[in-house]
Amino acid sequence: VTVAQQPKLKNLMQAGYGVSMTSTTIFGAGSWGTAIGYLLSQKDVPVTLWGRDAEQLAAIKTSRVNEKYLPNVTLPQTLSVEADVLAAAKASTVWIMAVPSFAMRELFEQIKTTATDETIVINLAKGLEAESNITMSQVLEDVLPQATIFTLSGPSHAEEVGLDYPTSVVIAGKDLEKAKQLQELFTTNRFRPYISDDILGVEYGSVVKNVIAIAAGILHGLGFGDNAMGALISRGLAELVKLGVHLGTHRETLFGLSGLGDLVTTATSQHSRNRRVGELLGQGQSLEYIMDHMNMVAEGVFATKTVYQLAHEHGVEMPITEACYAVLYENASPLEKVTELMNRQLKEERL
Amino acid sequence: VTVAQQPKLKNLMQAGYGVSMTSTTIFGAGSWGTAIGYLLSQKDVPVTLWGRDAEQLAAIKTSRVNEKYLPNVTLPQTLSVEADVLAAAKASTVWIMAVPSFAMRELFEQIKTTATDETIVINLAKGLEAESNITMSQVLEDVLPQATIFTLSGPSHAEEVGLDYPTSVVIAGKDLEKAKQLQELFTTNRFRPYISDDILGVEYGSVVKNVIAIAAGILHGLGFGDNAMGALISRGLAELVKLGVHLGTHRETLFGLSGLGDLVTTATSQHSRNRRVGELLGQGQSLEYIMDHMNMVAEGVFATKTVYQLAHEHGVEMPITEACYAVLYENASPLEKVTELMNRQLKEERL
Repeated sequence: VTVAQQPKLKNLMQAGYGVSMTSTTIFGAGSWGTAIGYLLSQKDVPVTLWGRDAEQLAAIKTSRVNEKYLPNVTLPQTLSVEADVLAAAKASTVWIMAVPSFAMRELFEQIKTTATDETIVINLAKGLEAESNITMSQVLEDVLPQATIFTLSGPSHAEEVGLDYPTSVVIAGKDLEKAKQLQELFTTNRFRPYISDDILGVEYGSVVKNVIAIAAGILHGLGFGDNAMGALISRGLAELVKLGVHLGTHRETLFGLSGLGDLVTTATSQHSRNRRVGELLGQGQSLEYIMDHMNMVAEGVFATKTVYQLAHEHGVEMPITEACYAVLYENASPLEKVTELMNRQLKEERL
Repeated sequence: VTVAQQPKLKNLMQAGYGVSMTSTTIFGAGSWGTAIGYLLSQKDVPVTLWGRDAEQLAAIKTSRVNEKYLPNVTLPQTLSVEADVLAAAKASTVWIMAVPSFAMRELFEQIKTTATDETIVINLAKGLEAESNITMSQVLEDVLPQATIFTLSGPSHAEEVGLDYPTSVVIAGKDLEKAKQLQELFTTNRFRPYISDDILGVEYGSVVKNVIAIAAGILHGLGFGDNAMGALISRGLAELVKLGVHLGTHRETLFGLSGLGDLVTTATSQHSRNRRVGELLGQGQSLEYIMDHMNMVAEGVFATKTVYQLAHEHGVEMPITEACYAVLYENASPLEKVTELMNRQLKEERL
């Protein structure tokens, strides 16, 4: 699919652009933060983009392109950059948290004093916190209990959003009235958010799918084909649902956009860094080498550990997660673990 | 993935080759019939391969290759060919039916008089019968009520089975004792069958997934990306499960290898002819042109009609199937139908 084909899609999802509710601040100038910045500023929502690297921000300001994380996308003038994190926080009442999971608590601690009653916090990260194994919305709530928190998730590669490819996501949170306002804020004729009150269901789905995506990459790296991939995704979803339901979330959420939908996109797409990590592991590279040579954070590497611990803590059997954990953290042979997994399935199928 | 990478996979699925139960006859020398012939003859199960085209069979006999439908695969001498359909039927008591759905009843009528009490019939076709809209096992049962019938299905592109890529399938039927024997008959260290008694669940899943695969192809042909694909598969599975459960089959079957597993493989793979049909439709080709220029039968084209009728008959809402039907049979614009579909989803999501 080329960008040249895109004009054909112009009349898609014409439910209107939605109104600009307010100005927004995006914390994190990686690919996803930048893509969301593109999306909002393109519809004239004022965006302040903060990132750790002041030099990178300055370059974005001048060139209107995030060369390192989202090349090929030109950022409108409605997007401004701000290297001072507190100034960025004070610039708006809608905070979009696009930093990796491991950096979430620290960042939120830094800015929480500038929050007002109006502040809305939208998490974009797909991970659990190390040690505590709680979700990002739980981390945010832990830091600032009175905050109004949402998670935006679903099958949404930044590269495609930056090129206006049609994309559907879920915005989940307890306050459905505000969720509807956010739905309007984000809606374009190519970007369609649905709303849900099952925030934990959305979060668990988005975390576990990254683990399964690493397994999918391992299969691919070992030389398996599409037949094995179908089997893996079917078993992977079973595992994701088992954990999610055990933790009190809704099956519908897990089978929806942010669960199965995101799982399929991540596990089968060549854009996915989590799948890419698995692929390199399957080809015999060490995790250390892979982490050293990756431009971006692959959340699945951390998620494999947190989900593994969560599964043990709650006594939920998750054989694919176990296999990934052994490959990533116990130096197990990918081929041996996959073999075990394939042989194990036999006992597990119905009948 | 190249064939050269395959040796790495040698020690996969080592549960043993299973014993050779008996000789087998395969009716249908297309890609799937030939791949199953390769699988069985490779483990020294005597295979008689029948096909409509005597010349093609003679060429296979000499060259040991089915040039038209499965090039790159050399067929062992344990596989023989037989152009006389009754002689082929008499050659064994395990009949593997690998003809397209539309040809199933007529073929079975032709050979049924040679069936004995020992005869086992295994359907490989993934379609419903036109007009009656019943499954292939129901067609076989209708023709010969005393027959012992199974369906073998799952994510299993013939091209990959012919190249020894790891593959898992389901063998479903009411007689679980015989199913276990068939499981042994088909098992290799690269081909793993599970057994199930939910034969209709396996069949409905395998039929509806071809419809969704056409929709996936249309999306791709129109220039959509991986984000939209994730959304489509998530909604496609919902539709497949809705119909299947309404018709009394088990959810577990529909979420398993022969439902979700096969759906993912077919909808995301470049081997799939059903996806290919959709791709060409999305690029603006007419169905007539596509059918004229395809080497093989794309079951999904027929399935779109039968599933559409079945859904109406039972009052089950299946918007993706409706959209495919309109594109295939009512000359609707793929882009318009997809647009409708994407806009419609909004109302359907939970909340």
